[in-house]
Amino acid sequence: MEVELKQLMADLQSLNQSLPDPSLHASLLKIQSRVEHLATLAKSEPVRRSKVKDMSAEVVDSNPYSRLMALQRMGIVENYERIREFSVAIVGIGGVGSVAAEMLTRCGIGRLLLYDYDKVELANMNRLFFRPDQVGMTKTDAAVQTLSDINPDVLLESYTLNITTVEGFETFMSSLKNKSFCASKQDSGVDLVLSCVDNYEARMAVNQACNELSQTWLESGVSEDAVSGHIQLLIPGETACFACAPPLVVASGVDERTLKREGVCAASLPTTMGVVAGLLVQNTLKFLLGFGQVSPYLGYNSLKDFFPTMQMKPNPQCSNFACLERQKEYILAKPARDAAAKAKLEAEAPFTEEGPLHIDNEWNISVVDDCEPDVSSAKNSDILPEGLTHELPVADDFRNIVTSEAPTTDNEDLEELRRQLEAINSK
Amino acid sequence: MEVELKQLMADLQSLNQSLPDPSLHASLLKIQSRVEHLATLAKSEPVRRSKVKDMSAEVVDSNPYSRLMALQRMGIVENYERIREFSVAIVGIGGVGSVAAEMLTRCGIGRLLLYDYDKVELANMNRLFFRPDQVGMTKTDAAVQTLSDINPDVLLESYTLNITTVEGFETFMSSLKNKSFCASKQDSGVDLVLSCVDNYEARMAVNQACNELSQTWLESGVSEDAVSGHIQLLIPGETACFACAPPLVVASGVDERTLKREGVCAASLPTTMGVVAGLLVQNTLKFLLGFGQVSPYLGYNSLKDFFPTMQMKPNPQCSNFACLERQKEYILAKPARDAAAKAKLEAEAPFTEEGPLHIDNEWNISVVDDCEPDVSSAKNSDILPEGLTHELPVADDFRNIVTSEAPTTDNEDLEELRRQLEAINSK
Repeated sequence: MEVELKQLMADLQSLNQSLPDPSLHASLLKIQSRVEHLATLAKSEPVRRSKVKDMSAEVVDSNPYSRLMALQRMGIVENYERIREFSVAIVGIGGVGSVAAEMLTRCGIGRLLLYDYDKVELANMNRLFFRPDQVGMTKTDAAVQTLSDINPDVLLESYTLNITTVEGFETFMSSLKNKSFCASKQDSGVDLVLSCVDNYEARMAVNQACNELSQTWLESGVSEDAVSGHIQLLIPGETACFACAPPLVVASGVDERTLKREGVCAASLPTTMGVVAGLLVQNTLKFLLGFGQVSPYLGYNSLKDFFPTMQMKPNPQCSNFACLERQKEYILAKPARDAAAKAKLEAEAPFTEEGPLHIDNEWNISVVDDCEPDVSSAKNSDILPEGLTHELPVADDFRNIVTSEAPTTDNEDLEELRRQLEAINSK
Repeated sequence: MEVELKQLMADLQSLNQSLPDPSLHASLLKIQSRVEHLATLAKSEPVRRSKVKDMSAEVVDSNPYSRLMALQRMGIVENYERIREFSVAIVGIGGVGSVAAEMLTRCGIGRLLLYDYDKVELANMNRLFFRPDQVGMTKTDAAVQTLSDINPDVLLESYTLNITTVEGFETFMSSLKNKSFCASKQDSGVDLVLSCVDNYEARMAVNQACNELSQTWLESGVSEDAVSGHIQLLIPGETACFACAPPLVVASGVDERTLKREGVCAASLPTTMGVVAGLLVQNTLKFLLGFGQVSPYLGYNSLKDFFPTMQMKPNPQCSNFACLERQKEYILAKPARDAAAKAKLEAEAPFTEEGPLHIDNEWNISVVDDCEPDVSSAKNSDILPEGLTHELPVADDFRNIVTSEAPTTDNEDLEELRRQLEAINSK
């Protein structure tokens, strides 16, 4: 539209120069000012926020990162801003992948690599993210459009390809190997791959690539009846790969996708997909930023709100050759891993057992750290900020009250109670 | 923009009429066609999908409901289209409420009532739904804008008000009492209230309204450290109300909101809020469409992926007068409830215990129901659609294989094994 408006203004200018009658100049000027006004309107329509250089923790309405940086204040994350150094690849930008991409974008992830070959259809509107006005666009293009508007700080790379084709798989592999993103980081390749595809073949392709590259990934899935799903962490060599425990039912001799399309379609719900995407990205954040525990496997049965967990070791008879290679490496690296863990423990030990600097501490003076007092007070639930009061005594006080008010339960009291009971019974 | 373009065209028309030199007409015509092209461009920008009269289960890319109607085919929901008869009120259009509203909109809910008084800020961008170009709009207006673009079939009512003020509470109450929505339904008021607010005072206002109106509601919440949340079902008189078990810490003498604003802000994450919204709306769908089990309480601890559940009975000493009234009614209605449950059981019994129509069934002929064969086949995992094969034998076959191949473990075999073991040991 911008181009069209510029051409229009140029045409008006040349008309102005060739006008013979000066009385007409006034009406042309009016027309020109109208076009200029239109140009302003057209420009102001897609309001975008400008890029932010550093993530600030400042509590102002205009700071898009204040609520995320508050995770540090709350003692959950040590250094939230590190999220800008990480790259995450999302394979499959459908009901789960698109929401996962939006969550990571809003969290301010450094770089997102998006892979899909499909187009947006009206039939996708029962899941979050895509809008009816994006119907016909490729999912990758539509995602880049929406995500770059939401957060221009995220570096978006989009790959409109099918990873199950030979060519697609090669591009997929080389994009994962590219390590040119973050200069300040030791390994600036992809930190995690999220598999959000909807078929076995594509999962096996992700599995093959990650096994070959020794790349940790999180797999996700939603059942065909739309009411259950799961996420799973796969660390090549350390946990079961996707081929270690093959599924019980697979397509044989036919294209898996045709099974889905012919007159039957899988059900889907924005709720189940939103929950699975949320669990997937929450575990991604825990993995990248080092807080909480990353779940090795987490299921979601929505009919009963049941969340099964389990752990799967790699299969020494796995059919995937690269998996067997990674298993060997993992076993060979055990002594080095043990030594590193021991060294880490020893390195941390002096800190906790540190004695006073001066042994003759006659007055028992100790130094209290005065930076970030809020973290400690947030963890210590006894101390409340001004304006808050406990409605009930805290557990310890309550026990004191109970013990001070309740009779001491020694033998004499029991005798007394027995006498009272007998007196009541005999009435 | 449309208005401005029309004015521009009128001005050009009048200029055309007053032009003396016919050679200038050509350049003006060119300008006019440019403006017309601009008008087409401006019109085509917000592409919206048209309304849909009936929900179709047809599997075509252009059907926005195909994946939802498939829930019937999969045997999950009996009649999905009933969702169009339901009204859901969402109080608080923040990180949880906005996503809940989007999920229900994409599911094709009949009517949504939205309540909030706040404006969109850049600081909200770390949660899903709102976009940077909506900064400054009220959350209700921004939500209506986005939701009506996503699904024009949903009737949206927006209330830009604070339910904790006297006036706001009155409008809230009267909007919940309005029963003019769906003519075909017996009670066409609000079917469920979702509380997605972020403070105690607002929760108590929702609690008061729902207790007074005997209105079932679902409460939701996310912790200040952003890493846990919960949902809770509240049925006045039957389950604990929000005042039955007061929280341990409340604001005293100060405005609760000022506690949050002064230099400190609660952390928030799109993941936790997305999961809580997903669990909330999934339980809403189960409640409305009658499938699965609605959770009375479901917690989400994201650090450990732990999901505690519990049930809370109403407190006979509850401080809320309306709650005590509902408790009395619930107890008084017990005999009627029991009788209804018994009648329902008896009404269903003849169907299951129905004998053959003709007692002399010499050839053992029985009638097989031929409607909806897919539901039964979907449940019967033994029968697979064409092109699918079992990778492993099913459990029963497997047991047969094992028993036929394994040696019979009688005493003689044990003796034989013992001899073999001794022979090995003695080597």
